[in-house]
Amino acid sequence: MASEEWSKSEKTIARRAFDLAYERECAALADEVRRLADRIAGPDDIWKIHDFLRRKRKEIDEKYDYRYSVLIFVFARLLGEGWLEESELAGLSDDKLAKIQFLAGTADQQS
Amino acid sequence: MASEEWSKSEKTIARRAFDLAYERECAALADEVRRLADRIAGPDDIWKIHDFLRRKRKEIDEKYDYRYSVLIFVFARLLGEGWLEESELAGLSDDKLAKIQFLAGTADQQS
Repeated sequence: MASEEWSKSEKTIARRAFDLAYERECAALADEVRRLADRIAGPDDIWKIHDFLRRKRKEIDEKYDYRYSVLIFVFARLLGEGWLEESELAGLSDDKLAKIQFLAGTADQQS
Repeated sequence: MASEEWSKSEKTIARRAFDLAYERECAALADEVRRLADRIAGPDDIWKIHDFLRRKRKEIDEKYDYRYSVLIFVFARLLGEGWLEESELAGLSDDKLAKIQFLAGTADQQS
């Protein structure tokens, strides 16, 4: 999979889908931060927000890795976690889509 | 100043004042976190809250050091920063209060 080739149009689709997922996940995170901030009842709740954001930053930094050598895995994860829909990857080669669906566990089971 | 003796009643006053300042500073911090959370407009704003909280946690952890050997300095700082009022330290020995006021820069300039 390391020798995966990405055409120019595939790169455009990939970049758009990647950015879309990132925006969505960050928007959900922002909602969660606002919810936690509204519920602060004491100092401990502040430090819990800090710990939560530290974990999330690490997780998101690791997840959103835009290297073509790993992008199939990244999209599979984003699909599996619900940050992307398959239709948003339309235009990638059938081979790439099949791999992404297989890894995400969303491939048809009919074979 | 390392040989400072704290009577039982002074320890009670000190603990109360220390906790009061901590609660106040954390309440102000909570207000700031809620304000920042309400203004999140994009991913960068989330990571700014994380960075802000990381700095604040370090600063507050270092500042609120309840060892009798450093408590005079701690109270001087809390007084200087406005988290405590002099009246909330009433009951400490005149010697301690004079040192705290001197270090906080709140001593009378008349002498």
